[in-house]
Amino acid sequence: MTKTVDFIFDCASPNAYLVYRPLRELVLRKGAELNIIPCLLGGIFKATNNQPPMVSNAGIENKSAYERLEFVRFIKAHGLSKFQFNEHFPVNTLLAMRGAVHAKQTGELEPYIECMLHHMWEQPKKLDEKDIYVAALDECGLNGNAYVVASQRDMVKAELINNTATAVKRGAFGVPTFFVGDEMFFGKERLGQIEALLEQPS
Amino acid sequence: MTKTVDFIFDCASPNAYLVYRPLRELVLRKGAELNIIPCLLGGIFKATNNQPPMVSNAGIENKSAYERLEFVRFIKAHGLSKFQFNEHFPVNTLLAMRGAVHAKQTGELEPYIECMLHHMWEQPKKLDEKDIYVAALDECGLNGNAYVVASQRDMVKAELINNTATAVKRGAFGVPTFFVGDEMFFGKERLGQIEALLEQPS
Repeated sequence: MTKTVDFIFDCASPNAYLVYRPLRELVLRKGAELNIIPCLLGGIFKATNNQPPMVSNAGIENKSAYERLEFVRFIKAHGLSKFQFNEHFPVNTLLAMRGAVHAKQTGELEPYIECMLHHMWEQPKKLDEKDIYVAALDECGLNGNAYVVASQRDMVKAELINNTATAVKRGAFGVPTFFVGDEMFFGKERLGQIEALLEQPS
Repeated sequence: MTKTVDFIFDCASPNAYLVYRPLRELVLRKGAELNIIPCLLGGIFKATNNQPPMVSNAGIENKSAYERLEFVRFIKAHGLSKFQFNEHFPVNTLLAMRGAVHAKQTGELEPYIECMLHHMWEQPKKLDEKDIYVAALDECGLNGNAYVVASQRDMVKAELINNTATAVKRGAFGVPTFFVGDEMFFGKERLGQIEALLEQPS
């Protein structure tokens, strides 16, 4: 039986960017399925009373420096040389993640995710500005204006809210979070454990 | 050239217990050296404004449950079936870690560490009570009273303070922390990275 890795995803998270391609490669290599679930990281934080590491670590000496070190190590280990930190961080991704819900509904999720990750973390932009969002999508050959229209649909809004609430109900408190069946994994350092689980017979 | 893994160590940390034996096995297997540096975790927390995860995660929904899950997974993956949570946690380890400084000076560190880990996390006791500490050491065939006397020596007190301050200067903010040369690693999940580094030619 094919196993599925659910990826609780929001392109707002630099760690989601970093883990996306190595995870895709791993899932492909293991003959599993990747199921990206668009969520709003801000909504997960609000529901769980969590904060971005950059905020919660700010007052702790040495901790942010170590997080940056592991960031750089991960980039090097996986050859993610295109990564650039987004100077507008944190970018509000309500529009971008509503767009991801629409892209999933219309079968365009993979190119949409690639496009968002590129314009958030490779050629970083302030993607919470509508004009910039539309231009980014157009540049990727997607229809920017159609995505803005879709983002106002109740069904799209409701699904993003529902995805986010469901992720928290399953145990998520941040992004990237992964589920293989009932087994949850948090963070970009969990690829080895996910690989081991995908190798187990069903 | 033989590589050395410095282990910023305090037996107060359950994660230090969990990682100790797998790390020792790894270091041995790779022909490297393990250098345990007794520190006071409470001193590291004070110097860096950090807190135990159980405190900092307490207000965050789902996060402590996930930490417990990774705890259980690590125990299972490494066959650490003797582990029992210490109901007196957090135990003040000033006496125990001063003792570790003395044990290192007298060449008795390995049996001393084994003894402390056993009485803290396998047959858990309130090791910050002097009588319990002495009895624990005696049971291990170490001289409990001699350790209490040593713990009052200025040289022992000063070395524990110095070890702790030096660890923070090198970048530590918690336990377990490891250094291989200038490369720092934090947490029990870093064994794979340490292994890869030990495999690199010097």
